[in-house]
Amino acid sequence: MLSFTFQNPTKILFGEGMIARLGEQTRPYGTTVLLVYGSGSIKKSGLYDQVIEQLKSIHARVVELSGIEPNPRLTSVHKGIELCRSEKVDLILAVGGGSVIDAAKAIAAGALYEGDVWDFCIQKAVIQQALPIGTVLTLAATGSEMNGNAVISNWEAQQKRAFGSQHTYPRFSILDPTLTYSVPRNQTVNGIVDIMSHVFEQYFSLTPDTPLQERLCESILLTLIENAKIALEQPNNYEARANIMWCGTMALNGGLISVGMQNDWSSHGIEHEISAIYDIPHGAGLSIVFPNWMKYVYKERIERFTQFAQRVWGIKRDSLSDEELALAGIDATRAFFTSIGAESRLADFNINNDQLDHMAKEAVLFGPIGSFKKLEQTDVQKILEACL
Amino acid sequence: MLSFTFQNPTKILFGEGMIARLGEQTRPYGTTVLLVYGSGSIKKSGLYDQVIEQLKSIHARVVELSGIEPNPRLTSVHKGIELCRSEKVDLILAVGGGSVIDAAKAIAAGALYEGDVWDFCIQKAVIQQALPIGTVLTLAATGSEMNGNAVISNWEAQQKRAFGSQHTYPRFSILDPTLTYSVPRNQTVNGIVDIMSHVFEQYFSLTPDTPLQERLCESILLTLIENAKIALEQPNNYEARANIMWCGTMALNGGLISVGMQNDWSSHGIEHEISAIYDIPHGAGLSIVFPNWMKYVYKERIERFTQFAQRVWGIKRDSLSDEELALAGIDATRAFFTSIGAESRLADFNINNDQLDHMAKEAVLFGPIGSFKKLEQTDVQKILEACL
Repeated sequence: MLSFTFQNPTKILFGEGMIARLGEQTRPYGTTVLLVYGSGSIKKSGLYDQVIEQLKSIHARVVELSGIEPNPRLTSVHKGIELCRSEKVDLILAVGGGSVIDAAKAIAAGALYEGDVWDFCIQKAVIQQALPIGTVLTLAATGSEMNGNAVISNWEAQQKRAFGSQHTYPRFSILDPTLTYSVPRNQTVNGIVDIMSHVFEQYFSLTPDTPLQERLCESILLTLIENAKIALEQPNNYEARANIMWCGTMALNGGLISVGMQNDWSSHGIEHEISAIYDIPHGAGLSIVFPNWMKYVYKERIERFTQFAQRVWGIKRDSLSDEELALAGIDATRAFFTSIGAESRLADFNINNDQLDHMAKEAVLFGPIGSFKKLEQTDVQKILEACL
Repeated sequence: MLSFTFQNPTKILFGEGMIARLGEQTRPYGTTVLLVYGSGSIKKSGLYDQVIEQLKSIHARVVELSGIEPNPRLTSVHKGIELCRSEKVDLILAVGGGSVIDAAKAIAAGALYEGDVWDFCIQKAVIQQALPIGTVLTLAATGSEMNGNAVISNWEAQQKRAFGSQHTYPRFSILDPTLTYSVPRNQTVNGIVDIMSHVFEQYFSLTPDTPLQERLCESILLTLIENAKIALEQPNNYEARANIMWCGTMALNGGLISVGMQNDWSSHGIEHEISAIYDIPHGAGLSIVFPNWMKYVYKERIERFTQFAQRVWGIKRDSLSDEELALAGIDATRAFFTSIGAESRLADFNINNDQLDHMAKEAVLFGPIGSFKKLEQTDVQKILEACL
């Protein structure tokens, strides 16, 4: 186990009807709230009205920024920053999924920074402060509700970049599983793939002697696998939605499940290059990339992959060699993704090899990526080719 | 899964040599530090000098309170409160195990309360504020380094009572596994039993549909079982000590592993009555009580016990009945405790049945205890009799 520091101050309010506590949670931060949301599905579902009612109950002044994109864009972040400054916003309230929350984080940090917020994404500046953020989560996926990370797309530059800061942890997050009942099937699938991928990025690690962390990762994977099909067959099943939602938060709550472990994150890096150009859903991109990444790297520490096959997929060792066992686990991963309807090839989005060179080059712009196996441009290119 | 709120703001600094960051962590809270510790083993080990050096480096004024007892006493807490007031203490720094940290929490809350701090222990008052607390942990056991709970003994009244508050979470805790190398064998054993017992209190629950939480509990138990014997045979094995230390923190870090589950805590309640009178080590008391509690209650939800037997102890179902499987898991628990040298009977401490009535009565002073099975006085009496 490596040395580490960990702190996660986000307050979680989890359960049906927790929206009723939004007012009381918001009040301490001031009177002017920037309400950030997406395409308007929260208006159809009635959640918007509930949020407004709560904010009215504490006499908050509400400023709105709607239309945050699924891969949230720098242009939207800029709009939000402007609103924060002109309206003297006290708290940013993100109501939506990870994209909306990520946009809120970038706005919160950008509003108190003299330069361009994109500086944080390209490692030109480090976040020193941010406006307080609260969230109401409507989609189980990114874990953004309980960490300080965000991913922003600069559409003009065709770049998708992440930042993380202790200052951009939400102060509170309201997680009501019933709000995910209406999430469409494909978004539910992408969310599940995203959560599993977050675990993979932490679990496939070269750090020795981390038995608790490995088991925590496996716990989340097993719970997701059990609950995915239930939620897909019965979208209004509270327990399945609740379990998936909590798995999503736990999978990336400031890195608690993998403290003291080196993480990888190269599959995310590769996926970001794909969706930066083609704007495909992040979860779909991960579903395509991850099993191919696994096949490319498993020999670096085959015993982690044999453990994965046995503990997560329940594959018996019997007479299988390490190699066969590891590959059976990877195949089981792909088979599971396919069984829930996740995409497996770039061709599913009509993406061909036109931009492979460009994507591979961009992925390693700041140097080789990953830690389980350090990937150079040629490695990324090979993985992308396997994804075609 | 039940609805829940969760927030744990404690900052963890984990790893060898982390004491070097004590000064920087302490500085923001002011200049006068109340250093709380136990019998002086930190002087023998050299840790005391390291702490003083760190505090000197930030020009802190150090006030000392030593001699905190293994079951920390109200009299010591009163001394600390007096010091806080007379010396205008800014931060309380606990250097030791759970007892020292618990005492620090009571001092922190009592210093800012007009009445007697014991009021918090007997539910006569609720903590509204507390001085900031920092900790340097020297013993893996109670989890007190990352939660708001404390247990205090009122020796005159022969009462041992707990309180918990959001205000008494340590602001930071330094966890260096090498500081536990010198922990004597019996204290290491008691710590491991204590950690496992914390998990048991959460794991044996009637709340349905909590698959992730159950697996997180099992993850900690499995990791402890694997590492206990290594640490006992090789006290200076970093990885074993680190894994046990992190298990201890995770087992009770504000209840994260069992959010949305009803907890039990009756075995702790029963044990507190034993050590309130006989001053035996808490972990030893738990080792005696817990398997007997298990045997008394397992039929309330036998499938949790069959799951425990299979997943934690690796017992195969084969042709075993639920009953046999559940009992085999309980026997395996006792066998494990015995294998690491933990006590199994009150007789091991020369405790007979003289005070059983009194203990059973005190245990239910505020009403029946537990939730897996609600225990009345007669139930507690029967469990205690089984412990003889």
